[in-house]
Amino acid sequence: MLKVGICGASGFTGAMLLRVLYKHKSVSISYLGSNSYTGSSVNALLNANYKNIPIYFESIDADCINRSCDLVFLAMPHTKSHPLLKDITIPAIDLSADFRFNNAQTYQKWYGTVHSCPDKIESRVYGLPELFREKITGSKLIANPGCYATSVILGIYPFIRKGLCSSVIADSASGVSGAGKALKTELLFYRVDENYKAYNVASHRHQPEMEAAIEERLGQKVSISFVPHLLPIQRGILSTIYLDNPNKINKDDATQILHEQYKNEPFVKLGDNPPQISDVVGTNNSQIYVTVDKHNGKIIVISAIDNLLKGAASQAVQNMNIAYGFDETEAINGWLG
Amino acid sequence: MLKVGICGASGFTGAMLLRVLYKHKSVSISYLGSNSYTGSSVNALLNANYKNIPIYFESIDADCINRSCDLVFLAMPHTKSHPLLKDITIPAIDLSADFRFNNAQTYQKWYGTVHSCPDKIESRVYGLPELFREKITGSKLIANPGCYATSVILGIYPFIRKGLCSSVIADSASGVSGAGKALKTELLFYRVDENYKAYNVASHRHQPEMEAAIEERLGQKVSISFVPHLLPIQRGILSTIYLDNPNKINKDDATQILHEQYKNEPFVKLGDNPPQISDVVGTNNSQIYVTVDKHNGKIIVISAIDNLLKGAASQAVQNMNIAYGFDETEAINGWLG
Amino acid sequence: MLKVGICGASGFTGAMLLRVLYKHKSVSISYLGSNSYTGSSVNALLNANYKNIPIYFESIDADCINRSCDLVFLAMPHTKSHPLLKDITIPAIDLSADFRFNNAQTYQKWYGTVHSCPDKIESRVYGLPELFREKITGSKLIANPGCYATSVILGIYPFIRKGLCSSVIADSASGVSGAGKALKTELLFYRVDENYKAYNVASHRHQPEMEAAIEERLGQKVSISFVPHLLPIQRGILSTIYLDNPNKINKDDATQILHEQYKNEPFVKLGDNPPQISDVVGTNNSQIYVTVDKHNGKIIVISAIDNLLKGAASQAVQNMNIAYGFDETEAINGWLG
Amino acid sequence: MLKVGICGASGFTGAMLLRVLYKHKSVSISYLGSNSYTGSSVNALLNANYKNIPIYFESIDADCINRSCDLVFLAMPHTKSHPLLKDITIPAIDLSADFRFNNAQTYQKWYGTVHSCPDKIESRVYGLPELFREKITGSKLIANPGCYATSVILGIYPFIRKGLCSSVIADSASGVSGAGKALKTELLFYRVDENYKAYNVASHRHQPEMEAAIEERLGQKVSISFVPHLLPIQRGILSTIYLDNPNKINKDDATQILHEQYKNEPFVKLGDNPPQISDVVGTNNSQIYVTVDKHNGKIIVISAIDNLLKGAASQAVQNMNIAYGFDETEAINGWLG
Repeated sequence: MLKVGICGASGFTGAMLLRVLYKHKSVSISYLGSNSYTGSSVNALLNANYKNIPIYFESIDADCINRSCDLVFLAMPHTKSHPLLKDITIPAIDLSADFRFNNAQTYQKWYGTVHSCPDKIESRVYGLPELFREKITGSKLIANPGCYATSVILGIYPFIRKGLCSSVIADSASGVSGAGKALKTELLFYRVDENYKAYNVASHRHQPEMEAAIEERLGQKVSISFVPHLLPIQRGILSTIYLDNPNKINKDDATQILHEQYKNEPFVKLGDNPPQISDVVGTNNSQIYVTVDKHNGKIIVISAIDNLLKGAASQAVQNMNIAYGFDETEAINGWLG
Repeated sequence: MLKVGICGASGFTGAMLLRVLYKHKSVSISYLGSNSYTGSSVNALLNANYKNIPIYFESIDADCINRSCDLVFLAMPHTKSHPLLKDITIPAIDLSADFRFNNAQTYQKWYGTVHSCPDKIESRVYGLPELFREKITGSKLIANPGCYATSVILGIYPFIRKGLCSSVIADSASGVSGAGKALKTELLFYRVDENYKAYNVASHRHQPEMEAAIEERLGQKVSISFVPHLLPIQRGILSTIYLDNPNKINKDDATQILHEQYKNEPFVKLGDNPPQISDVVGTNNSQIYVTVDKHNGKIIVISAIDNLLKGAASQAVQNMNIAYGFDETEAINGWLG
Repeated sequence: MLKVGICGASGFTGAMLLRVLYKHKSVSISYLGSNSYTGSSVNALLNANYKNIPIYFESIDADCINRSCDLVFLAMPHTKSHPLLKDITIPAIDLSADFRFNNAQTYQKWYGTVHSCPDKIESRVYGLPELFREKITGSKLIANPGCYATSVILGIYPFIRKGLCSSVIADSASGVSGAGKALKTELLFYRVDENYKAYNVASHRHQPEMEAAIEERLGQKVSISFVPHLLPIQRGILSTIYLDNPNKINKDDATQILHEQYKNEPFVKLGDNPPQISDVVGTNNSQIYVTVDKHNGKIIVISAIDNLLKGAASQAVQNMNIAYGFDETEAINGWLG
Repeated sequence: MLKVGICGASGFTGAMLLRVLYKHKSVSISYLGSNSYTGSSVNALLNANYKNIPIYFESIDADCINRSCDLVFLAMPHTKSHPLLKDITIPAIDLSADFRFNNAQTYQKWYGTVHSCPDKIESRVYGLPELFREKITGSKLIANPGCYATSVILGIYPFIRKGLCSSVIADSASGVSGAGKALKTELLFYRVDENYKAYNVASHRHQPEMEAAIEERLGQKVSISFVPHLLPIQRGILSTIYLDNPNKINKDDATQILHEQYKNEPFVKLGDNPPQISDVVGTNNSQIYVTVDKHNGKIIVISAIDNLLKGAASQAVQNMNIAYGFDETEAINGWLG
């Protein structure tokens, strides 16, 4: 059994990671860290009933993690992961943004802090299995992609790879869990309910992440406009993506390209109808649909994921499965809740 | 007092029209028609307390309307308005799509039925005050714009008019009232709540309406990609619009263009921050924001309206106010609920 | 024109008061106070378009209020009203709980602070028009009832007055606006959405308020069990109330008693079916239904109000209308939004 | 492996049963029946990814069920179960109301149809494990309790059993899934969202079910007033229950009684705070809290369950586990989603 730990196990993502890992047949949970709830009962706080896991949240401490785990998942806020990872000597899967860029300069530009272990960046892999499965195999440091980036990249990658478009407009909408449990006025019920809004317009950090991942994979630049929106729901992301179409491919061509790209992917579902958020919530699936606007030729891709699962926790487990040679679908197939 | 009637007064839009017109100081309500509720008590059905209005819904009958009203508002389903209007001899404001196109062929193409009074189309005006105020003055037949079209056209018109863009991508999201009160599985609570989806992708009838209205006003073609989405809320539309920017104008330029265009408009609000749906629900306001994505130069416009008010009922009253020379803001200023 | 002021005009209730008073034909708005937003633009903060009202929120100061107003509405938190009212020399309508009890001891017991002007309590009237209309007429200090108390008292009063019951169980559910705009974890969207809970079980301050008001009116004690619940909605209260029925009256009797009591009340609506929250939101109406459980004889009353209107703002205006001899329905009839 | 079938596998409850049974290590799914979707792909319709289950929904046919299963779950509408069960020769767990009463007359009174197999009623057991575990062991026909009944009975049973109360008022609120997927106007999003209402006031069929189950277990009558309400959420029931308290027990006594009763129950959770619906959704848990209103002595019990799980699907599996001697918590422990 692989002994795994979770740092930040009391947050949305960390708790979901625990829920998923708990069912994994090759894994035992050996460490659950939380700075906010050190010493609290895990089952009490999570309103759960887990057995054979640590009874209390421990403080987040690198030595302790190195000693007690074979692998650690970091479900911590951006900029809090890299100082900790500096002292981590075991393999890690980081769910923050701290290792998503492949160089420290770009990270510093977008996150405003100096990276504390740029050397570790060099050996990290960007953990989007559909693009980087081979590199993930055996990797010791995996940067789990952002939720928006996952939904957009999976939708556009097949077309960019074929050289069929160069300009991308991605309009995404997410439930509130994407913002975590922060106590902010804008996240109060009376502000979110019966409302909808764009935020971080033309300034969201996920857009450079998307471009960097595509460039890292294909060696080619792509220009993405990205506007995220806040939905009055708990979970899920839907991205509606508009691609230029200089080669004037039609809907059948576009659908065929998606099928070719993803035909062997266990977690990419291609439907005949546009996906809804309810189609994917509770699963590790990415559901993607494509059509072409006959009127003006634009390729329109619609891509849906559960931001807490394929956009975070279960994708991290998918990465672990690949890295360690487990069955890729172990613990993350079907309904996860 | 102008005697006004409403056909379809029991639906979302018709009931909202009654609520707005009821407060109008130059108007009396002389006729309320409903095929579904002929003979029912108006106050009972609408859970209201109106005085000096017709007590019962009447059947929808052209003769009766012609006799009892000076002006009639038609809040009926698409394709049900034109056969009725054929026999209407008094001025009318039609809230359906039946007179939004300026020729019968285009109408037939998108709505699948032969128009029964193409001659009336010729003299109709497209009732978007910010574009056609002069023509609306004194008009006898006003086609009230669609809700999606209102939100998108107001956002893009200033830029197209200045020749600053030619390609438009409009990503819109609407509350369920846009779909009326139809008894459809996809509108059940368990399907809409905690969900979000695109619908009518690349095939919505509002896109040609948008293009036709711009062309009618400016004599120039524009290409619009449009994808509507269904939000789990009652009311409101938010459109996030992406414009190409060949002249590379910056955010200040873009903001200045909006201000110039709308500085005298009583119902267009320009904010320093992106509008939220909650900013406009309950009002006749259109709130618009513009920025430029520094990264790739796209102009991004965000435009919000209440689909039942500026997108339907109160815009119809604004049109009446203009047509009859009343104060344009009478009965529709401030909070309408 | 009566010059009125509002203290706490930036909160849910204060903003609603302004909306209602703004339409009142015998009133002018001469003062808007807010400690949180002193100096801010009223229209900007409230996203509104009011004319002929103070442009900026002023600080909350008794001298200023006494000078600039003929009447002041206090829409402030509990325990903040009585120290201010101590120095107010003009008539006042207090929407907090500070003057709802008719003696300082009971107030101190439930609100934990010494009352600063017990002398003023003696002359105050409890502003529930359906019970105390005569005393309200000409009153200089009106304690506006709580929202829960309004919904429950109106439902049970006719039966208690007739001596038909002595034991009351009131199970109420309210939207989040009842809790104001406080930044609390339990009011975050992710906590409220898709959830429902009881709170302050058997310890809510509204229960003694209900009993005291009944006793003040009828000189007789009644025992009320009260449990409030939090609904995942913005506005509205529904109270389901269970009464013992020693005289074994039947449904017709019970309905007749309601009709007799309220037949001349402009804002009490008696329906043939149980009211829903959506029936009353946006109005000053209290909608009440009664039936008798044939199985075991309990009288079951269901009572719905809008907590921000009949439960707060518009009931305060109803009180003003009565106190000053205006038409009781002025500005609060029909749809208020 | 026990071969199990599900009739009505495409509904809310049937689909949830499949989800739960699929994880059960001693069970294989050998039959999935649906009259509405006969011939449709199970995975496609349920948007799922099940392996080693029937590929298509079959028609609902007793012979086929008898041949292919060792045990069948009936997740069908009330009045549709008993005609089918007449011809079923294998053990069955019925999730409808058709076998909840222990005599055909009471059933006919409340459900309006003659029972087609009254003989089978005699040997059936009411499948509430916390009351009837011993009878459930080895039973061939189990009537799975209603969701409202489960939440109320578990809350009151310990007190009635001790003779501490005789009069019960149960005020319950449920999410929309309790009403199934029926296409009804009152279940449209625009009717349910931002609303709350009582329904079937003093006439709901679950009240006699509660009384009958208590009487069947204790041989003593109890009088229950019951009013159900509809919440604008998907899942969950919260019951707030008011008990008379002639012996004047206090909160500590009451809490002690709950603990004694349920200390060995794997799925009854007793908390120090009132439960919320979000505490139990996704689990087979019943969470119960008790307090005593010091003011008037009433015992107040608050009880929450997930209506689709402990109120239906997972309780049915709990019953199977008991009947067949499996570990009672198999497949239903912890998070079910």
